[in-house]
Amino acid sequence: MTPRPRRVRLDLAYDGTDFDGWQIQPGRRTVQATLESEIATVHGGSRAPVRGAGRTDAGVHARHQVADVVVATRLDDAGLLRALAARLPGDVRPVAVATVPDGFHARHDAVDKTYRYVLDLSPYGDPFRRRWSAHPPHGIDADRVRDALARLPGRRDFAGFAGAAGRVRTTVRHLTEAAYRSNGAIGVFSFTADGFLNHMVRNLVGTLLDVARGRVEPGRIDEVLDTRDRSRAGPTAPACGLHLHRVRYPGDAADGDEPWTDPSPLV
Amino acid sequence: MTPRPRRVRLDLAYDGTDFDGWQIQPGRRTVQATLESEIATVHGGSRAPVRGAGRTDAGVHARHQVADVVVATRLDDAGLLRALAARLPGDVRPVAVATVPDGFHARHDAVDKTYRYVLDLSPYGDPFRRRWSAHPPHGIDADRVRDALARLPGRRDFAGFAGAAGRVRTTVRHLTEAAYRSNGAIGVFSFTADGFLNHMVRNLVGTLLDVARGRVEPGRIDEVLDTRDRSRAGPTAPACGLHLHRVRYPGDAADGDEPWTDPSPLV
Repeated sequence: MTPRPRRVRLDLAYDGTDFDGWQIQPGRRTVQATLESEIATVHGGSRAPVRGAGRTDAGVHARHQVADVVVATRLDDAGLLRALAARLPGDVRPVAVATVPDGFHARHDAVDKTYRYVLDLSPYGDPFRRRWSAHPPHGIDADRVRDALARLPGRRDFAGFAGAAGRVRTTVRHLTEAAYRSNGAIGVFSFTADGFLNHMVRNLVGTLLDVARGRVEPGRIDEVLDTRDRSRAGPTAPACGLHLHRVRYPGDAADGDEPWTDPSPLV
Repeated sequence: MTPRPRRVRLDLAYDGTDFDGWQIQPGRRTVQATLESEIATVHGGSRAPVRGAGRTDAGVHARHQVADVVVATRLDDAGLLRALAARLPGDVRPVAVATVPDGFHARHDAVDKTYRYVLDLSPYGDPFRRRWSAHPPHGIDADRVRDALARLPGRRDFAGFAGAAGRVRTTVRHLTEAAYRSNGAIGVFSFTADGFLNHMVRNLVGTLLDVARGRVEPGRIDEVLDTRDRSRAGPTAPACGLHLHRVRYPGDAADGDEPWTDPSPLV
């Protein structure tokens, strides 16, 4: 007897270095394709679409991505989690599995998302940080960066910071957090919004790094917002520093409760 | 006119994942070979031997390795450092270059070395830690581990914890630190000694993990020390968790001044 299908929410983390992004593309190693293939094996059924909250680009990481998928398996949530942990490769790891109402939609139901962008501030680049940070070839003037960041929050038209726009109905987004912190070893930008345009965080960071090194003034942010002119913004910062950090759903606490840095690594 | 040759001390860090260890072997990518080849290019001279303080095995990392080499270049130390930073790959990074007396020998002059072994304590493995930690499939009982560790310090015969011994004059080493700390996210073993036998740290950790999971009692440490019987020790822990953490020279402060975890990463 085939088990009754159910929808599960899958929370996961991945090192995006060796993935061609989230979304399935023929002949490419993507996170979605890897998940769909392993989930199909685990539930012994046909391949079901895995819907992710954020479609990260090639080389972009996820500290915490959320996805949903319909499975038909006798395994309970804990068993499914263990089975996925055993099967998935080391660069994409499950964190939690939970059965959710069939109406749950990882992307549509998200209240907001937080992306972080990590800078390695060591003088010559740290070999243990290189996969998940960018190493700017210049110092970061945090005061100038904060002056620029203060101009960003609010419901604004971010067209000037959008990459090749694709078909989006509107380029207006509600940005609720734009911050920078540093512990001397790494610097971290954090942006929270109800949605992000294509390449928006990387274009923001590219512009902020131009501000940080004194190439343009903090007021350049206002100028790009006002003119919606992409050519006045800075270059697109490299993918390797970008992390989908959190996806928030109704009922989740607002951010600020989490530490900025995981006090773990480098030994 | 050829510049006068001088000996320099080179401090460096490397992610050992994609290296076949420190020591030159024909046809293999090793740290020593990579350094010798780039240094030869930088000083435009013939290839000179780079002597490392510790000959790390394949897959073993260095948070802080020290080497010395004779160079003949018009570049001063700062210029040589910048040139090496520009040329060396992302997984082996220079930290400092300093001209030293010709008699300096990175290995012979070392007072002691500290190796650390890092455990990823996340339930299903963290994708950002997998290159530089080992993920034990069981919990760590820190009290049992500390009970076992307390039996190690002193001038002792560590033959029972040595791998295929090679030709060493003596298997006696003076271990001055054997410790374990955890912040909940990672666990770190730290060992300081005047020298280490082949695979000694990995065999110690393998035995300590057997103690940690309750497979053997803490007293097993005494038994291996007393009998010098390798077969009573645990398995060799994987290379990926091991880091050469520090090499100390006369005049350097004793350890304890450094934080146990670099409060950097994971975002």
